[in-house]
Amino acid sequence: MADNVVVGTTRVAMVMNTIRQRIAGRSLTAGAKLPSVRALAGSLKISTSTVVEAYERLVAEGAILSRPGSGFYVANQAAPFALSEVGPRLDREIDPFWVSRQSLEAGDIGLKPGCGWLPPAWLPEDGVRRAVRALARADGPVLLAYGSPLGLPPLRQLIARRMADKGIGASPDQIILTESGIQAIDLLCRFLIEPGDTVMVDDPCYFNFHALLRAHRAKIVSVPYTPSGPDIDVFARVVAEHRPKLYVTNSALHNPTGAILSPVTAHRVLKIAEQFDLTIIEDDIFTDFEHVTAPRLAAFDGLERVIHIGSFSKTLSASARCGFIAAKPDWIGGLTDLKIATSFGGGRHAAQLVLSVLSDGSYRKHIDTLRSRLSKTMFDVSGKLKNLGIVPWIEPQAGMFLWCRLPDGIDAADVARAALERDVVLAPGNAFSLSQTATDFMRFNVSQTEDPRVYEVLREAMKAARGKA
Amino acid sequence: MADNVVVGTTRVAMVMNTIRQRIAGRSLTAGAKLPSVRALAGSLKISTSTVVEAYERLVAEGAILSRPGSGFYVANQAAPFALSEVGPRLDREIDPFWVSRQSLEAGDIGLKPGCGWLPPAWLPEDGVRRAVRALARADGPVLLAYGSPLGLPPLRQLIARRMADKGIGASPDQIILTESGIQAIDLLCRFLIEPGDTVMVDDPCYFNFHALLRAHRAKIVSVPYTPSGPDIDVFARVVAEHRPKLYVTNSALHNPTGAILSPVTAHRVLKIAEQFDLTIIEDDIFTDFEHVTAPRLAAFDGLERVIHIGSFSKTLSASARCGFIAAKPDWIGGLTDLKIATSFGGGRHAAQLVLSVLSDGSYRKHIDTLRSRLSKTMFDVSGKLKNLGIVPWIEPQAGMFLWCRLPDGIDAADVARAALERDVVLAPGNAFSLSQTATDFMRFNVSQTEDPRVYEVLREAMKAARGKA
Repeated sequence: MADNVVVGTTRVAMVMNTIRQRIAGRSLTAGAKLPSVRALAGSLKISTSTVVEAYERLVAEGAILSRPGSGFYVANQAAPFALSEVGPRLDREIDPFWVSRQSLEAGDIGLKPGCGWLPPAWLPEDGVRRAVRALARADGPVLLAYGSPLGLPPLRQLIARRMADKGIGASPDQIILTESGIQAIDLLCRFLIEPGDTVMVDDPCYFNFHALLRAHRAKIVSVPYTPSGPDIDVFARVVAEHRPKLYVTNSALHNPTGAILSPVTAHRVLKIAEQFDLTIIEDDIFTDFEHVTAPRLAAFDGLERVIHIGSFSKTLSASARCGFIAAKPDWIGGLTDLKIATSFGGGRHAAQLVLSVLSDGSYRKHIDTLRSRLSKTMFDVSGKLKNLGIVPWIEPQAGMFLWCRLPDGIDAADVARAALERDVVLAPGNAFSLSQTATDFMRFNVSQTEDPRVYEVLREAMKAARGKA
Repeated sequence: MADNVVVGTTRVAMVMNTIRQRIAGRSLTAGAKLPSVRALAGSLKISTSTVVEAYERLVAEGAILSRPGSGFYVANQAAPFALSEVGPRLDREIDPFWVSRQSLEAGDIGLKPGCGWLPPAWLPEDGVRRAVRALARADGPVLLAYGSPLGLPPLRQLIARRMADKGIGASPDQIILTESGIQAIDLLCRFLIEPGDTVMVDDPCYFNFHALLRAHRAKIVSVPYTPSGPDIDVFARVVAEHRPKLYVTNSALHNPTGAILSPVTAHRVLKIAEQFDLTIIEDDIFTDFEHVTAPRLAAFDGLERVIHIGSFSKTLSASARCGFIAAKPDWIGGLTDLKIATSFGGGRHAAQLVLSVLSDGSYRKHIDTLRSRLSKTMFDVSGKLKNLGIVPWIEPQAGMFLWCRLPDGIDAADVARAALERDVVLAPGNAFSLSQTATDFMRFNVSQTEDPRVYEVLREAMKAARGKA
């Protein structure tokens, strides 16, 4: 009997999936009549009652409508697009939004070693306050009118100079301001890929890359990340096999691992990209954390097939929304059209504020202090985590992240769930891993891992997770 | 001979389109080998030289690659997506970007009766300046950290109260802050439609709706707008025939016409929407221009199938990027996930600033003054335009736009081009018209049409356009 129920359920599910796939694949379009119960039962060689049950469940879901006396029809308003239903089905508890939403919702008070930003007290509050006061004295149009399509010229000049310091040549005309780093990648995805195109990411990588690429209906493939960049042999194989159009990565300081691309890997990545006509987005938002300049793909490539993006949310303020894209000149017109279509002129406040802070001598001093503070904190936190048996995968040269393995194969998702019950937001490894192979990994933001309560909660949460295993 | 060239060209174009369609429809995917020249010539019953010519042109376009000795292959990196190549081919001179780009690029100095915003001098500069000064005294996290996923709670409460004043019931939990009005619609398109879905707009409508919907690869259909709303008979026919998933409109003050939805039309629109399960986005960004509250679809519908969006760029500041979505509770979670994926937490500065200005008693006074000034200016400008034979389609009750017909069927695009040579940006009618039936119409922003030079340039540009016709 139990078996029958399972079999029955499975068949109903199979029919439901068949119909869902026809709707998704548009062989059944909105308003179209579904096959009659009898016809479908015949063609699938199943009972009519199974089809009836499947159709009724699809009606309950809103995917189809029943018109008594006439039959079943595809609903016009398909169920709204849900990110969590796209791509490989992840455990919602640790899907890409778990960390983002918990961290953002924790607000300014909770403990969140899993979040991806510095505590406000580590940011240049005085400099930002001065910049806001300067904005209050700006000309009327700065306060009141749209920005120009590319964005504030002196800020674009300054970004070009900052890029030159990292070895990347770009003229201010090749730079478009955006409302954030993630919006820069979003705009580029609209420009470069079509739904169904394949995009490659690192494994692990910043979890929001998965979410964003799913929003673009991209097929995502991944390549394991090593301490010197993507595993180049796997990289070559994945590119040859899947022909991704786009590779989205962080050079310099990699998120979540803190690894740094080696020159030899950078060179080989670019050779393979050229061979297979692959475009690369290099997200460099951690640039100001660096002590020593690491290789940038854009520096080697000269913005031919590499697009360089950045923002100021990590070291200046997350609240002033301003990012940028640097790309080859041919693409600037099309990107600008898309920017206008999706966000019109953009504002001027954030760009003006970022320009003020970056132009102020105090920013350089802030960055120097910040780097030393992070180095020291990373050493301390690394030691305390090791005391709990949590071991960093590498000792990063800079940045705020420690990518760590938990002892004895403990499931990081279990630990994260247990910690959340005590208001501590952690970042379990599989949120970063397309292949879901980082089960016993966890990313720690050392600047948010100073409070002793974090270790107390970690210890107990690991104990609870061990008990579960 | 001439005929032969045309026929030859047409056949080559036909072959090129065949291949392009196979690539677009993914029956030929990136890296796939194309049919041999001989095979394709045979199957299409055309000469091999026609196929060779078509293939060579596709190589030049970058759509396919030639590998000598091996054949032709689909290029891996498809040409980046260009908005201007999507949808009905428009004259680039008057495509949706013509007005936007010219207006935005004209900066703070040029004359731009065609633009869609008030001159900075008409906006509440003192109030915004006070709000920026208040922001400089805010707590550190406000200056430095991400916002919460839904956005600043007191601003969402205030928006809910403002909506209640217009007869729309919504709780603050049904409201999500976005970075602008257009970003609100963009997020909703991601949530509600798939590439290839049909979306309905008004004809004429805000030109950026066309651009945005093309960026979403939507099929666009349109319904003529009358002085009391969409032509309801055509509306019913278009909905029944094309089964659009979404209808994007302005209620209250319609852009570009200044028309106002009548209650009877609102009711019939909603009845048809219910019958065909159509979702409606109601863009209400001109709300503060109203003297008398016009019917809102969301007020009649109770946010069941109507989504209400707005922003503060038109009457407060275009530079403070802040818009919002009000939707039914079930959709808030999915929309929030998408917001995080595409713009993460968003900033706090703009929301804080908008809250300060709206909470300041001076804003209400500003709006009162603004409305009177616009009424007076609309009367003046309307008279001066009539002196040139340019006649308003209706006399709007409020707002900044006059939708006018030029005399003697003069082509507004010709007038706009001639005026641009003299640094005056106009908004020719077909930029707003999907059906391209507004050739002799033009939208005037009365607040930007006060300078006597506008009329001088208009007179001469019309003379030049007449000479051309």
